[in-house]
Amino acid sequence: MSDSRPIGVFDSGIGGLTVVKALRDLLPNENIFYLGDTARVPYGPKSPETVQRYAVELARILMQKNSKVLVVACNTVSSVALPLLTKKFPVPVVGVIEPGARAALQATRNRHVGVIGTRATIRSGSYEMALRGNDKSVRVSSRACPLLVPLIEEGLLDDDVTDQMIMRYLKPMLADGIDTLVLGCTHYPLLANAIERVLKEKIVLVDSAQNCARAVEDTLDRESLRVAASNRGGLNVALTDAADNFLNVARDALHLSFSEIELQALP
Amino acid sequence: MSDSRPIGVFDSGIGGLTVVKALRDLLPNENIFYLGDTARVPYGPKSPETVQRYAVELARILMQKNSKVLVVACNTVSSVALPLLTKKFPVPVVGVIEPGARAALQATRNRHVGVIGTRATIRSGSYEMALRGNDKSVRVSSRACPLLVPLIEEGLLDDDVTDQMIMRYLKPMLADGIDTLVLGCTHYPLLANAIERVLKEKIVLVDSAQNCARAVEDTLDRESLRVAASNRGGLNVALTDAADNFLNVARDALHLSFSEIELQALP
Repeated sequence: MSDSRPIGVFDSGIGGLTVVKALRDLLPNENIFYLGDTARVPYGPKSPETVQRYAVELARILMQKNSKVLVVACNTVSSVALPLLTKKFPVPVVGVIEPGARAALQATRNRHVGVIGTRATIRSGSYEMALRGNDKSVRVSSRACPLLVPLIEEGLLDDDVTDQMIMRYLKPMLADGIDTLVLGCTHYPLLANAIERVLKEKIVLVDSAQNCARAVEDTLDRESLRVAASNRGGLNVALTDAADNFLNVARDALHLSFSEIELQALP
Repeated sequence: MSDSRPIGVFDSGIGGLTVVKALRDLLPNENIFYLGDTARVPYGPKSPETVQRYAVELARILMQKNSKVLVVACNTVSSVALPLLTKKFPVPVVGVIEPGARAALQATRNRHVGVIGTRATIRSGSYEMALRGNDKSVRVSSRACPLLVPLIEEGLLDDDVTDQMIMRYLKPMLADGIDTLVLGCTHYPLLANAIERVLKEKIVLVDSAQNCARAVEDTLDRESLRVAASNRGGLNVALTDAADNFLNVARDALHLSFSEIELQALP
């Protein structure tokens, strides 16, 4: 049995392409349909109700594309809309929070984990819940880093100002004694090098994109949804508004290749 | 004759409150209805078609509030949607571009004007057109400063990182010899102090919010739309999504007072 329907991936914008990159590396034969809501990006500062409404709209479009699994490549949406999406749609739904939390628990030695993300993700407390739901003994330090996304979208991945903001955000957590840091926003893997450069000390970075891709693989295996090994995997990218500057940043940094971008109308 | 209908003001988010502040100072008796599209902010990186569609939706809501004039307190919208709004709605429409351009032409001594704004505003070339439409001899240097809005929204109005970004954006324009700088984004007046601190030299800053307010005053006089002098002016604020952090930043920096925020549903 093989299932050539696409893996449907959505995000508030372009950031979820870090998850697509991880999926392409791990599951090169699969077909992927990526939908980025660039017409309404960013979700980070928006209310849970608005984010839930947008998430359902995007998931519905991916179901029309015949997706066999829905991947929520956005920490903000994963934080506030995963139960709703799971209830509403008949295919498995994979987010980024639970896989990231599990990986952090495997990585930490001193049981003290740091989490960074958008304001909405941190305010939701979802990583803390996922971490402590799996291990009540773990200590969690969280911090919203709202300027990192704009810095990344401007392509300042190797820049003095970005380094300063990273230091400002992370210094209190380091002083607090974390040994593991969850990059709780799909943009942040693009800053992994900068964060390692700035921190110098040995902190394990947990990339939620990579861990999400592994969770998708597990789901495909468990539900017998894999495509044939002979399939030459493909990637379609659709956006709800014309791509901005960040698409070039992401494409270059991730070495992703895809054909023309489709423009997807919203309801 | 007096007209107590509100002045309808809209913006992609909270930034247009700088225009409201200027209107309150100049026209304290008028009633103002402010509508901020926080559910879809920011407009800066979005396509002209999408911005036009959103602008018409917001203007329609303000017409339902019985507005006597529509004030587009957003440079991005003013850049791409003013003719469309003027055609579609039966009340006067005032933007921020033309008033800012005229004030800059009055201020410049060496006929070399700088303009900063969002990517969409600068890409549209609308300030350049307005400036050169009024005075063909003027030289214009423009620069998109996409990180200033996020820095302002984080409240980093007096901060080393913000100063560095200002310097980075403005240095080439100074080297080029501008003597006047148009703050072509309604957020930027909140950075006027920082810009003056960083630039040191004598550059005249043209605040598009203040000049927009003056243009509204002219329009009210010309069309006999003024409220009675006895009226105690009021301010209503409606947002399309729950207010984020920036509302507090703006309220504090602008010393604005208004009662509860209404939540305005989008169509």
